[in-house]
This record gives sequence, structure tokens and C-alpha cells, in this order.
Amino acid sequence: MTEEHISGGYNGKILRANLSTRSISVEEIDELFCRRYLGGAGFVTYFQWKELKQGIDPLDPDNKLMFAVGPVTGVSVPGSGRHCVGAKSPLTGGYAKSESGGFWGVELKQAGYDGIIIEGKADKPVYLWIHDGEASIRDAAHLWGHNTKETQDSIKTELGDDRIRVATIGPGGEHLVKYACIINELKDAAGRGGMGAVMGSKNLKAIAVRGHKKPRVVEPERLKEFREWFMANQELWQGMHDRGTGGMMEGDMAAGNIPVSNFRDGEFVDISKITAQAVRDTIRVKMEGCFACPLRCKKVVQVDGPYSVDSAYGGPEYETLAAIGCNCGIGDLKAIAKGNELCNAYSLDTISAGDVIAFAMECFENGLLNTKDTGGIELRFGNAEAMLKTIELIARREGIGDMLAEGTVKAAEKIGRGAIEFAMQVKGLEIPMHEPRLKAGLGLGYAVNPHGADHMNNIHDTMYTEPGADLDVVKPFGILEPLAADELGPSKVSLFRYVQQELIIRDCLVLCDFIPCDIIRLRDILAAVTGWRTSSVEMLKVAERTLTLARMINIREGFTADDDKLPNRFSQPRRNGALSNKPYDFQQLQKAKSYYYGLMGWDTKTGIPTPEKLEELCLE
Amino acid sequence: MTEEHISGGYNGKILRANLSTRSISVEEIDELFCRRYLGGAGFVTYFQWKELKQGIDPLDPDNKLMFAVGPVTGVSVPGSGRHCVGAKSPLTGGYAKSESGGFWGVELKQAGYDGIIIEGKADKPVYLWIHDGEASIRDAAHLWGHNTKETQDSIKTELGDDRIRVATIGPGGEHLVKYACIINELKDAAGRGGMGAVMGSKNLKAIAVRGHKKPRVVEPERLKEFREWFMANQELWQGMHDRGTGGMMEGDMAAGNIPVSNFRDGEFVDISKITAQAVRDTIRVKMEGCFACPLRCKKVVQVDGPYSVDSAYGGPEYETLAAIGCNCGIGDLKAIAKGNELCNAYSLDTISAGDVIAFAMECFENGLLNTKDTGGIELRFGNAEAMLKTIELIARREGIGDMLAEGTVKAAEKIGRGAIEFAMQVKGLEIPMHEPRLKAGLGLGYAVNPHGADHMNNIHDTMYTEPGADLDVVKPFGILEPLAADELGPSKVSLFRYVQQELIIRDCLVLCDFIPCDIIRLRDILAAVTGWRTSSVEMLKVAERTLTLARMINIREGFTADDDKLPNRFSQPRRNGALSNKPYDFQQLQKAKSYYYGLMGWDTKTGIPTPEKLEELCLE
Repeated sequence: MTEEHISGGYNGKILRANLSTRSISVEEIDELFCRRYLGGAGFVTYFQWKELKQGIDPLDPDNKLMFAVGPVTGVSVPGSGRHCVGAKSPLTGGYAKSESGGFWGVELKQAGYDGIIIEGKADKPVYLWIHDGEASIRDAAHLWGHNTKETQDSIKTELGDDRIRVATIGPGGEHLVKYACIINELKDAAGRGGMGAVMGSKNLKAIAVRGHKKPRVVEPERLKEFREWFMANQELWQGMHDRGTGGMMEGDMAAGNIPVSNFRDGEFVDISKITAQAVRDTIRVKMEGCFACPLRCKKVVQVDGPYSVDSAYGGPEYETLAAIGCNCGIGDLKAIAKGNELCNAYSLDTISAGDVIAFAMECFENGLLNTKDTGGIELRFGNAEAMLKTIELIARREGIGDMLAEGTVKAAEKIGRGAIEFAMQVKGLEIPMHEPRLKAGLGLGYAVNPHGADHMNNIHDTMYTEPGADLDVVKPFGILEPLAADELGPSKVSLFRYVQQELIIRDCLVLCDFIPCDIIRLRDILAAVTGWRTSSVEMLKVAERTLTLARMINIREGFTADDDKLPNRFSQPRRNGALSNKPYDFQQLQKAKSYYYGLMGWDTKTGIPTPEKLEELCLE
Repeated sequence: MTEEHISGGYNGKILRANLSTRSISVEEIDELFCRRYLGGAGFVTYFQWKELKQGIDPLDPDNKLMFAVGPVTGVSVPGSGRHCVGAKSPLTGGYAKSESGGFWGVELKQAGYDGIIIEGKADKPVYLWIHDGEASIRDAAHLWGHNTKETQDSIKTELGDDRIRVATIGPGGEHLVKYACIINELKDAAGRGGMGAVMGSKNLKAIAVRGHKKPRVVEPERLKEFREWFMANQELWQGMHDRGTGGMMEGDMAAGNIPVSNFRDGEFVDISKITAQAVRDTIRVKMEGCFACPLRCKKVVQVDGPYSVDSAYGGPEYETLAAIGCNCGIGDLKAIAKGNELCNAYSLDTISAGDVIAFAMECFENGLLNTKDTGGIELRFGNAEAMLKTIELIARREGIGDMLAEGTVKAAEKIGRGAIEFAMQVKGLEIPMHEPRLKAGLGLGYAVNPHGADHMNNIHDTMYTEPGADLDVVKPFGILEPLAADELGPSKVSLFRYVQQELIIRDCLVLCDFIPCDIIRLRDILAAVTGWRTSSVEMLKVAERTLTLARMINIREGFTADDDKLPNRFSQPRRNGALSNKPYDFQQLQKAKSYYYGLMGWDTKTGIPTPEKLEELCLE
């Protein structure tokens, strides 16, 4: 297929690499497929549905690891430097996808591909090298055991090009830590669901890419208009530009959004020590950004002394500041920065890692674990040294790290004696740093999201408590009336559904959630790139298709509506601080789930998509 | 309430006139109400729900006649010269609303009101005079019995202002013809559902308005942008500008869209004699437009000789050309122009009038009526004289006109002997000039539309048979794949639902359907006028709210899902011409209805809105 047969924004090519047979092939995708799934999350969802056999072990060669960019990847609009990774999750046993920022996806696009499907398992460590349409499988025995920076540096050196982009795993992925992530450019992660473990299970150490083909844009003038609008409205993103994520932690703590000590508490006196402002004022050396993005929201930190941190690994985002910070009772910013560096070096998801450690700390404090189990570590809330030591053990599956590498559910099963009550997860995926007892819609989102507890394809209810506040340009929904954060009636459910779909569209394009841009501008960007006469309605349908297909994948794996649930802990109020008299209303959640299913065209009891909805979405 | 308390685009005032007590009051509406219902169709639907008692006779003083403009009415964008009328329909016994173009609505807005609610019944003929915030009830005894032009002229003369705008009934409305309309500026009609009969039942001859208050627009610059875009894209509306409606009749006849001889046939040899092109080339003297609209799509015709036509009454639109033309087997353009003039002079809906006459002609040809019944008229297809004579009889309820003034259903009941098979109507409202056997989605729309068979809030399936064709700018839906006109699976149903909602939004704004403008531009226009940070999603919700409330009104009046049906005739193919082997698939319609109900959040069997959907829409 030549370029003339595919829209702007696409190469029309998927690279397929079978590591068992060491064969590489290129497959063409057509315009109809692109328009039905767009890219990114749409593509990896489709291929999971189409190509993964029911019941396979996620760490078996039968699983496939998929990377996809989208029509927007690498074009000159802010937030276009992202890609999506998907596979059957070793953490949930179901559908998974995760996005990452940076430059790697752009390089893949420029190398001539819209996606990669990795099959089988190499008999010894390898890496994949893709450059300007060419691809080869190369020996990685010398890289195995190395952290991400050593790996990246070695690959760049041996291929003789410093501008190569590398997505790689560290020891965490190699040791099949169930929540190992895939790190690109040392500081960006396809974090959730254990994509790094799947990579490790295939003996695939890294994927290095380099390309020079500029993505084709059909109507560049329209993109320019968007860029100009974006630059002219700097006040919409100035805060992210100045501080990055974590700039509102003090207010959020007071409101009750931030978990403390494994979601048990709401009070944390040291909160001001671990905010983005604290980072800026103490350890930050600069800000960096992704491809083509003037937001530059990524902190880069450097620490000397006992917790020395290499600035090559970037700096902690909000999720990390909270997950290995206050949610472990830790207020030592340098220790948190060190923990962040370790996770990036070892390829561990900081959210799951933080939740796992918080879980272990609570088990320890409740006598379910002791120093014999931990190898002498006093694994208590607030013990920064213990947190860092535990990350090391997990990454190499040493001592208690072996059990904790399995994630909270499996670890709780092993520990027994009610430890499961401390496992803060949905479907096995650990919960991000946003409190459903404050945000009722977010709790619904945690429960029904196909890949488990997720904050990215979710509603942050507090944004909707003022009529229309910030929504016209930031989100696609001017809303009429305030919807209280803790409200979960049909209006909130309906709003959640729209928000979820808008965010899935971004993951299909792939475009960063931080770019202030309503669904219409998303439509305009897509139309400009591809030349399609498309519409927001058609795009929302792509999101519906993707979500329904993800649901079908989970149903194939035995998931039911009963798996759309929150941990019991949320039925109790927090022990102190904000919301200390406010449990999550589980009865309301049941009703909300049913209403959500109905809005999605799924059976209101079972959550199974109706045959008519499948037909409507061309998923027969 | 002062202007500062209400958004741009609104006066914040509803005029209430009780004709029984001759009292006039002004009520304030607040911003929340405006944002929930927008205006136009939203307002008249809300007030029907809120204020009409269950089971009232539509021609009783208990019925209320409502007029509403919208936020867009009278602002300087094309298509903004419209208003909406609503009441319980004497034709269907249920919900009704109908829009009209021209200038009358703009004048009402400039006079300081967003709507009028007429209650009770005057003891003798009156008219309402509204000017710059003031309103009075005036004697109309001297106007009773006069046609619309005489009435308008008299009122202008006695009030001493030629720029007064008059909405009035002629003898049709006075005689309570069940499908009497309300005519403004002699050539624009709130045509459907018998609004003119309701006006007549109240002894209200006319509403004259005059105002000088310019509607407040919060961001006029944004409106200017739209106007500039509109003028720069003249090719989108050039056809309507040149010919008006009815410019595609030859192709539509060949395709099978145009009914012939009471929807029985598909062949009409004289079609080229009654098209908009034929009008242009023979009897047209000029084109006219509505307020602020460069489209100027309204034909003005003048005929001398036996069928002399006064150009003050405008000229026939497509619906009229077909309804009293080919659907009565008539190809005499001058006779059709005369019939159009009579309907405008007497205030009769040309669609219902045409269908009623076609019905009577078929009854006559089948021996269910004879010359004794008709007073000697040879009421056969193709008899133009008979058509004109029958319009006269209907308007004054003379002879057979008295029975035919009741509409096809009541007339068929009276005639008996299977005449109901010739009554082409849904819920009692006669069917417009578009063929469901060609357009399957349109058939669904006829069946489920709350006020009966309607072509304005409906899908015209042939527009969607090419991917994205004309949709990006004209309609809100880029669609991915062609949807054949005769297809009625879930994809078509879903598309119908979106199209229906987009059109309802226009009726709430109130903005003309002929303005090429997708849902985003609708959002931009509304936002510019009101200053609201609103969204397409919120606007779609207003449409959903309006449609659900209309459904509730019908349910209150005893309508069930069984009333959402098409006449039996469509289960048979046409007797000749295009589609002569193509019946409408009634089984498919049943399935499509059920799927539509589900998409609307209504029970899939009964079509009754679920409590949760009512709660979502704030309709508890």
C-alpha cells in the first residue's frame, strides 16, 4: 500500500515481530480500520480482541505486546508526543492499555509505523531496532540486568546515534514484577497494568527507534490555527507549565482528595513538604517537555547526598509524590525523589509500587507481617528508608520483594488473615492517588474501567461543581448546573460517560490529557491531519467502540459485573482529616453501575453489551 | 427581573394573556430555566407539560396556545427569524409544536418577550396587540370571517403602523379545521398539528406585534465570524438561494422519494411541470427571505387569469407542490399556486390539506364517496378544480368540507368501510411528502415523533449514503461508512437519534434547518449570544430533555408504543414507478423502535422513560 491509499496522519503499516521464530513482517492497515479505531488505545484494544486467545497466561509467549501511535502522534500540535501500549495484563488477567509521553512514539511514527505487535518469546535476551522502515532483532544478553539508563546509553553507543529513542525495561521487567512498566527516555512510562512484565516475559529488553519521515498532514493550516489559539491562551496551561503536576496538593489534601497511609487516613502534616511547589523550591533543576509541547510540565530534579538522584531520570509527578509519599506516610521529598528514580531505573509503576508498599506497611503495623518476613525492615508508615529498600527488593524479587512483586491481591492471598482488606485495588490494579470518598463519579470510574482502577480515563468530580467552570475550553462539557463531587445520580453517571469517552478519544489520537482542548478542537485536529470529514459524534463512537471491545475482552476472560467494584475500605470513612465522617455509598454505586451499563448499551444487570449495540458499533 | 439577571439572547419575560378574564400579566423566567430548555420548542414543550391538564379537549378554553422565540431569534445570523407555536393538538389529541419563519418572532423578541401563553377563551373575537413591552386585548369582531391578508391589512391600518407584524388565522382557523395553521406575514405558517384551530377556539383572530428593543448579544464578534464564514461558503446554500425548496423533485421522483396519488403510486409524468425550476421559469416574480437571511429561499409567485394568485401570499414550497400537486395527481402548476394561496389566505396546513384531499380522492375513486357526498364534485386524482373547490369547502366546513376538516382519521371513521386504509397519517397527523419506503430511518422518525408524522425533526436517509457526504458542514455527523437509505439496523437508528436531537436543538434556539451549520457552530452561536460556557453535549441534552418531556405528555394523554406506527399502506409496495417492488419492512421497524427507545433511556418495550433518565434530565 502506498501513501496515497491512506489518510494523512497514518503510515498504514504495523510492524509484527515474532521473537520465537525471529521473523519480522509488515502488515498494512486500511483507512476503514483507521477510521473505526483511530490509533493508540483503539488499535491495541482491537488487536487484543482479535489476536489474543482466551485464557492464556499473560506471561506466556501466547500473549502479545502491542505498541501504537495515533494520527496525531508527531504532528506539530502540543501533546502529540505520546504512544499507547497494550497486552493482556499479568496484574488483572484481563484487558490492559497504558499511555506514555515523551518522544519515542514520534520516532516510531517517523520510522514508518503506526504500531508494533510483539509475539512469542526470544530464547535469550534481545532488543528490537527499528529505523526508517527497517527492523531487526538484536542480541541483548549484555544489557540484561542493567537499569534503564545503562541500557539506553549502551544501545545508543552501539548503534552510533545519540538521537535514537529507547523504550526499555529495567530489572523490574526482567524479574516479571507484575506491575513493571516500560520506560522511554528514562522518565516517561507506560506505567499501568504490568506491560513491562509482559516485555520481560518475552526476553525483550528494549525497542530502539529512529526515523526521519515527517508525518503527512493534509491541512497544515488548520493545525497552525490550533497552535496559535493554544499559544494565545497561555493562562489555560500556565499552572502546569510553572509547576507541573502536584501543584494543588495542599488544597487537595484539605478537600480530602489525597490518600494518606494506604487510603486509611486523611491527615498529613507534612503535605507542604512534598508538593510541586516544594519540588520547585528545593530539588528542581529545570522543567522539560514532550515532543512539540510548550507546556513543558515535567520536573527534572537533582539530589546530592544520601538520597542522590540522577537528573537523567526526571522527577516525581503528582501520582508518585503521593503514592510513595503521603500514602506511605512519608514526607521526605528527597527520599521520594530517590524512590522515583529507582522506579524509573528498574521500570516499576510508581502507583502500584506505592500502593503495594503502603499495603505492606499496614500489614506490618497490624502484625500480619513482621521483621522476620521483611528481613529486618521496620516496614512502618513514614519510614522512608524502608520504602526505598522495599523498592529494591521488589525490583529484584528478593526477600519479601518476591511476594510484593505480585501486586496487592496476590500478596494478600499469600499473607491471608484479612490482609485483602488492605489491598487497595480494582480488578487487581492498584488505585491511583485520588479519593473516591471525595469524588463519587471517580469511584464509579475506578469500578467500571476495563483495565482496573484508573485516574486517566476517569472523571475528577470536583471540576464539575461550578456551572461550566473551565469546561468550555478544557473539557467538552459545558454543564448546566453544579454537580456536587459526592453526587452519583444519573446526571453524574451520564457526565462520567461523556468524560470517559472524550478521554478515550485522546488515547486513540493519541493526544495528552493536559492539552486544554474541547472535543470540537479534537475533531478539528483529526480532520486537519487526516483530511477526513469527521465529526465529534463519530469520534465519540470510536470511544464507545473501544470501551465496548475492552468490555468484551474482559468478558471473554471471565470477568463479570461483580468485578466492577471498589475495595471494602471505601465503605468506611477515613480515620482522620477531611471526609472523616464520609464513607463511599456502595448502594448508590450499584445503581450508578447499572445506569452506566444502560447508557453504554450494555445489559443493565450483567454489563454485557447487547447484540444490537455490537451491531451498531460494527463489532458483530 | 432586570436585564442584568438574564443572559444575552433573552428578555427573561413571558407574556400571559387570559382571554376569559381579559387579564394580562408578565412572568419572569430565570437563567436556569433558559439553560434547561433554551427557548422555542423547549419552552412550548415545558409549558405543555407543566400547565395543561390531562384529558382536556384541545378546543376547550383549558387548552393553552403558546408562542416562543429562542436565544437566537432576532440576532444577526442567517435563519434567526423563526418562532415556535405549541398547544395540545386537536388533530392528534397529544403533544404539538410547529415552527414558522419570517419576521413575526423577531418582532416579538424586540417587543420584549421570549414567549406568549394564551389561556381561556374570549367571549367574542379579539386580537392581541403587543408593542414595546405593552400588551392589550382588542376587539376583532370586524375582522372575523376575513382572510389573512384582509386581517393583516386592517390591523396595520387601525394601529397606524405598516411595520407591525401579524400572526393570524383565516376562516380555516375560525371554523376549527383540525389542521388549521397560524399564518404570519401571509406566507409563513406554524403549519402542523392544528395550532390555528386552537387559536380559533379561543376567539383569538390575530396577534400583532411591534418592538424596537435590539436583542442583547454578549459576544457580537463571534457572531460576526459565523456570518463571515457563512458568506464565504455560499456554495453550501446557493441551490436554496436560487430555487428554494423543490429544486430536486425530478431526481427525487426517479429515486422514489415523492408520493403520488395518496402515497399509492410512484409514477408521475408531469413532475417536471411542478418543480421549483418550473416555478422559476413560469410564475415566479421574485425570491424573498426571512429576517437577516441572505438565503432568501422563498418563492413569490403571481398568476393572472383563471387561477389568479396574489403575490402577497408568497409561493408554494416543496411540501405544497407535492401535497396538492402530485400526491393529488395534479400537475397544473398554476392550480397548485392557487391552492397554496387559498391555504395561506384561509390558514390551512398545506400538507394535511393535501393529504386529506388525496384521501378523499382515493375514497371517491374506490366508491367510498360519491358525487352525492361531494356535492357534485368529481373528486378524482388529477382534478385540479376539485382540489381547489375542496379547499374552499374545508376552510368553511361547507358540504363535504365539514367532514374533511376533521382530518383523515376522523373522516375515515365517519366514512367507514375500510377508508382508514387510505388515511396517510401517524397519530392523526398527516404524512409529509417524503417516502419511507425509500428512507427507512425517516419511517422510524414518522412513527416515533411525538407530534405525529413529521419531516422536520427527522432523518433524510439518502443524505447518509456516502461517507461523510455534505455532513461536516451541513449536519453534525461525519459518518464513517455509507448507510444505505433502506437500512434500519442499530447504526441507522443511532444516527437518526443524533439527527433528531440536532434538529430539536435548532427548534429550541430557534434556528432554521436550512442554515448549513454543524452542532459546533450551533454551540458557538449560542455561546456568543448568551455568554454561556456551554457545549454541544449540554445542548444535545436539552434536545433529549425536550423529546422525553414530549413523550411524557403523550403518555399522560394515553399514548402507548402501539401509537408509534406507520399506516398499513407502507407494508405494500407502490403500485408503479420507483420502489414498486419495495414495501416498508414493518418487522424491522419494530426492532428499530425498541432500539431507539433504549438509546433514549426509555423502556425498550413500552417506550416509557425510566425514572433514572427522568432524574438525569432533571424531570423528576
